[in-house]
Amino acid sequence: MSERFFTSRWVERPAGLLDSRDLPAGFRYAGIACGVKDPGSSVLDLGLVVSDVAGTISAARFCDSGVLAAPVVVTRERCELHTIRAVVANSGNANAATGDAGIAEAERVQQAVATALELHPREVAVASTGVIGVPLPGERIAAAIPALVGALETDPGGFAHAIRTTDTIDKHASFELDLSAGRIRLSAQCKGAGMISPRFATMLCFVQTDAALSAPAADLLLEATVRRSFDRVSVDGQLSTNDTVILMANGSSGVVVAAGSDDEKLFGDALDALLRQLAVRIVADGEGARRIGCVQVRGAGEDTVERVARSVANSPLVKTALFGGDPNWGRIAQAIGAALPGAAPLRFEIAIEGVTVARDGATATHDAAALAAAVAGAEVLYEIELPGHGAAAEIFFSDLSYEYVKINAEYTT
Amino acid sequence: MSERFFTSRWVERPAGLLDSRDLPAGFRYAGIACGVKDPGSSVLDLGLVVSDVAGTISAARFCDSGVLAAPVVVTRERCELHTIRAVVANSGNANAATGDAGIAEAERVQQAVATALELHPREVAVASTGVIGVPLPGERIAAAIPALVGALETDPGGFAHAIRTTDTIDKHASFELDLSAGRIRLSAQCKGAGMISPRFATMLCFVQTDAALSAPAADLLLEATVRRSFDRVSVDGQLSTNDTVILMANGSSGVVVAAGSDDEKLFGDALDALLRQLAVRIVADGEGARRIGCVQVRGAGEDTVERVARSVANSPLVKTALFGGDPNWGRIAQAIGAALPGAAPLRFEIAIEGVTVARDGATATHDAAALAAAVAGAEVLYEIELPGHGAAAEIFFSDLSYEYVKINAEYTT
Repeated sequence: MSERFFTSRWVERPAGLLDSRDLPAGFRYAGIACGVKDPGSSVLDLGLVVSDVAGTISAARFCDSGVLAAPVVVTRERCELHTIRAVVANSGNANAATGDAGIAEAERVQQAVATALELHPREVAVASTGVIGVPLPGERIAAAIPALVGALETDPGGFAHAIRTTDTIDKHASFELDLSAGRIRLSAQCKGAGMISPRFATMLCFVQTDAALSAPAADLLLEATVRRSFDRVSVDGQLSTNDTVILMANGSSGVVVAAGSDDEKLFGDALDALLRQLAVRIVADGEGARRIGCVQVRGAGEDTVERVARSVANSPLVKTALFGGDPNWGRIAQAIGAALPGAAPLRFEIAIEGVTVARDGATATHDAAALAAAVAGAEVLYEIELPGHGAAAEIFFSDLSYEYVKINAEYTT
Repeated sequence: MSERFFTSRWVERPAGLLDSRDLPAGFRYAGIACGVKDPGSSVLDLGLVVSDVAGTISAARFCDSGVLAAPVVVTRERCELHTIRAVVANSGNANAATGDAGIAEAERVQQAVATALELHPREVAVASTGVIGVPLPGERIAAAIPALVGALETDPGGFAHAIRTTDTIDKHASFELDLSAGRIRLSAQCKGAGMISPRFATMLCFVQTDAALSAPAADLLLEATVRRSFDRVSVDGQLSTNDTVILMANGSSGVVVAAGSDDEKLFGDALDALLRQLAVRIVADGEGARRIGCVQVRGAGEDTVERVARSVANSPLVKTALFGGDPNWGRIAQAIGAALPGAAPLRFEIAIEGVTVARDGATATHDAAALAAAVAGAEVLYEIELPGHGAAAEIFFSDLSYEYVKINAEYTT
């Protein structure tokens, strides 16, 4: 799995990684068709992941929209986020902008899963993805929970499939990792293709490991790795109402990742690579995407470099040029300027795939043929140097294609 | 002209407007082919507008990018902005991100026009629009100035044509206005279709009147009307490097618009309607646009309502839904939430073409068929109510279509 999974040159293959795909023990998964997307259809749209181990540790992160979906509100407010044992997730309906009724429906689903699994509702997280503003058929979902629990198995494939919306490629992976304290396993299932913004992203991601982590360690590791992955991608600059990432560590391997140890560093690097590769996959599967870009900005001021990186990554002009294989760096200059009003004259430098196209804020002589060839690849790197030193920001982004327009103009997503 | 010009229901027909198209006296215009866009071609790409009246009063506004084009820098720094007598403008090359050489080329063009017209360079504004980062052929333009001056005529049509880039519809108008002090005339030529952001827009607009205005009045009137027009449109949320608006009032009608008079109010209203209708035309001619939207946000806090309006107007998800004639208000909820992190739960209300689709932050029962019919028109109104009162913001925006992608992926603009 890992051989085929870590495919981006922007993700370092973690140390200690084994070329096996054994799954973390003590987790079970299910995905069934419940008719949320389309009543009567056999499309998988309801999923469940469960840790069978009491004392499982968890950590969670959510988006920060002013319009939060009901499942996010319910999970944040009614769950004990460090002791989540199960996550129930549906696709086809976001249960967002659905008011108090939406909260009640999310709670109904949470309660049904807790009852079926003999857990406390605070141990059951809920997640939804799909269309906004449509009432969730919570009664239908609750009625399907016994069948969902009956479908639990060790293979996460069905679960991973059930959380997809407009996704066209699989975004799940499992691998083993050798730590000095022993061998552990990681598995993750992720969805996301549109409404993806660098301020987090419209996505769900569930990560399981049989390593034993403390609650503070799980929280810190998830915080650090989400910031370098799902918080650094843009398909269309649109912040979702539903983003949810949940890490569960059930310790069933018997291997303890001690705080401050070298093993914690190794585990963190592996989690980092896993989430970054999933984030790059989201971008590569961005609605209608043909190419992906990575913009790296260096200069003075964390706020400045991040603002510029987001402006470039979200620019429809830069994105259409990326789609067209057009090395039109003037649009990058435009996006830099738009991010920094009042900063003129700005002595920026731009390199595309290592070819310096602008220096001191102006055209730099370069080999146009070499540049044209470089931007025709599947991954294009844009490096921007601003005045000063000390800060750096990086964002992965998709291009903007006919297909993006088609997907979003012709379907209600 | 005015009958066919004031076509949007969002622009009030100004009081005192006459259905004639007499031009302001004392202005001359020219547009010629100079080979900036394409050497040897007969496409008009160099334009000039001149006031023949000594003592002409002017006012100017520019965009606020951190990457300002050379003509903006030269006009801002070397012109006396209240006494501009001539504007020379080229299309096909933005002269932006061109460094010190670009400044020198802009000055060369400015000097050539000053010499040919026997003006001081500080009376000659320069403007450019087109591709960024390509050296301006200033020598070729300077050599063409005598021919340009020789082509001066009273009809602004050629000038209006010469400043176009991807524009597909005319954006110029002339009309007469009856003030109590007498009859005056207004004429304006405008270009803009892509790289249009609500923080001003990628556009040039030149306005001439034979009314007599004081310099402070011209400045105040331009400030107020630009803020309600070109500062309130979005095609793609992209801020240009070159935006320039210049108002010239030469007083040749003998009619003085006195400060604080009813005439000043009438004149201001007419200028406001003129610039708003031009701004709406820019949006309607937005690259690939089929429909235009207008989002009006009301609630507490100027900053809040403006942030929400910009977020909705710039959202590619809202724009593709507008293109598809899809009344998908969930995407509007998403854009509201994205603009106001931490504000959940937010009790917003959304109405589309008068149909209330969300109330108290959640789905409101509505007539889906009526709504579907309403969003199929050429102009779609989105009204958003946020908690509180006292502030309002409005932005005009275009949809996002296949054609936008085509224009920006397949051409270097």
